[in-house]
Amino acid sequence: MSKAEAGKVYLVGAGPGDPELLTVKATRLLAEAGVVLHDDLVTQSILNLVGKEALVVSVGKRCGRKKITQAAIHELMIVSARRGLAVIRLKSGDPMIFGRAGEEIDALREAGVPFEVVPGVTAASSAAAFLEASLTDRRVSSKLIVLSGHHAARTAPGLALWPGTLPEDATLAIYMPGQNLAEVAVSLLGSGVPPIMPCVAVSHASRPQAAYAASRLSGLAHLPTPFAPTLLFVGYAFEAVLNRDAEPERGCLDHLAALASSIRPDSIE
Amino acid sequence: MSKAEAGKVYLVGAGPGDPELLTVKATRLLAEAGVVLHDDLVTQSILNLVGKEALVVSVGKRCGRKKITQAAIHELMIVSARRGLAVIRLKSGDPMIFGRAGEEIDALREAGVPFEVVPGVTAASSAAAFLEASLTDRRVSSKLIVLSGHHAARTAPGLALWPGTLPEDATLAIYMPGQNLAEVAVSLLGSGVPPIMPCVAVSHASRPQAAYAASRLSGLAHLPTPFAPTLLFVGYAFEAVLNRDAEPERGCLDHLAALASSIRPDSIE
Repeated sequence: MSKAEAGKVYLVGAGPGDPELLTVKATRLLAEAGVVLHDDLVTQSILNLVGKEALVVSVGKRCGRKKITQAAIHELMIVSARRGLAVIRLKSGDPMIFGRAGEEIDALREAGVPFEVVPGVTAASSAAAFLEASLTDRRVSSKLIVLSGHHAARTAPGLALWPGTLPEDATLAIYMPGQNLAEVAVSLLGSGVPPIMPCVAVSHASRPQAAYAASRLSGLAHLPTPFAPTLLFVGYAFEAVLNRDAEPERGCLDHLAALASSIRPDSIE
Repeated sequence: MSKAEAGKVYLVGAGPGDPELLTVKATRLLAEAGVVLHDDLVTQSILNLVGKEALVVSVGKRCGRKKITQAAIHELMIVSARRGLAVIRLKSGDPMIFGRAGEEIDALREAGVPFEVVPGVTAASSAAAFLEASLTDRRVSSKLIVLSGHHAARTAPGLALWPGTLPEDATLAIYMPGQNLAEVAVSLLGSGVPPIMPCVAVSHASRPQAAYAASRLSGLAHLPTPFAPTLLFVGYAFEAVLNRDAEPERGCLDHLAALASSIRPDSIE
């Protein structure tokens, strides 16, 4: 264990949102950083762990509304490191899964700036923990497939999520599935996923407002998702979640949607 | 943030091995636990974080040499919780990926024992951080597929790792690939993976003895793996790792194998 080094960039996973699900290393580095460049999805309770002397810059690109280009992020990292600061590039979840870390690593390597990657808890792990359903289960699921529903990560808009037939014993974790679950359902049915396959949309796993909604694939197009789901699970591993939905103590999106509609809009964050 | 509850079981991810890559929550729970039931792969430096009053039991099933049955693990968890202890079931990596958490959750549910899952950093994330190669990269890889090479997780021994054709823009992370990489290579070639596809075997990522060996799929059968690789990556995302192998400062399994053979066996842990 050594202190955050001056003139170095740390690509750090911020985990799913709960500050207690940061790694010990990430927590320490945030306290020691000179500059923190963070994505939109990083929560305020995590940013509160940054030392008071540090400069904190949001470099998020929320929903296509680009505030800052990828090239500008590279420039910011490189310039800050060359000025002798310890730079934290903070990404939600794990930096190596849908985080554009590949491009940032190439830029740092080319610039000759020393860097280190600090892994984090990815969204699929925290959503599975929230749902109390294992991602793999030797009885029904021997594989985990992590996909992105976000167009930027796919070759072209409207392209199938999967080319060809999906194996039935796989668990799918679709990150950023978007609001158009009908399009997702059509794509999965086209890949041979049976209509009875359980689907669970999860938002804000690990945070107080965590919620989910579950249905069979045949009903996915009509699943109520009042909050932007951050992840969509598909697979027999979630059969128990479907059966559990009748239980009153489980927070579920339907319930929260009804609750939300009874609250005045200006009282919602 | 609340203290570890008496009479409750926590299924906790221990992460890849480095104690600094535990979550803050896991670290806290380990200090507060009454009983810790851990797998073989959990490192001593992590077990050192357990409080002095706690009972620590290894319930590992190393390489088929079964010391304890899965049913006995369930029994231990349930009995300990019913005696009013805070029970930590500590699993390497993330508990929901190849950790038999599904069966343990079913047993706890059936016994009416309260439980909670605490996610951890999975091996693929820490191995990618070690290799400085992103698991997904919109330029070459839009999907991550997590498989197990271990027979127990597959339907039958000798069965193909993947049924049908694997997409070329996927990154494969094969957990517990075993020593027989020739068998893995044959299986992947049979699934249409091109012989030029980069492969990287990684062992002990995040730990001081971390090492890797890289080759094309065509050479995978002859890859020297003196240490049991914990993970095998396959995909174009690792092209840069192959090209980097000439650099003298990178630890590589070939180099370490030569080093190890020059050390007297009794000085190796």
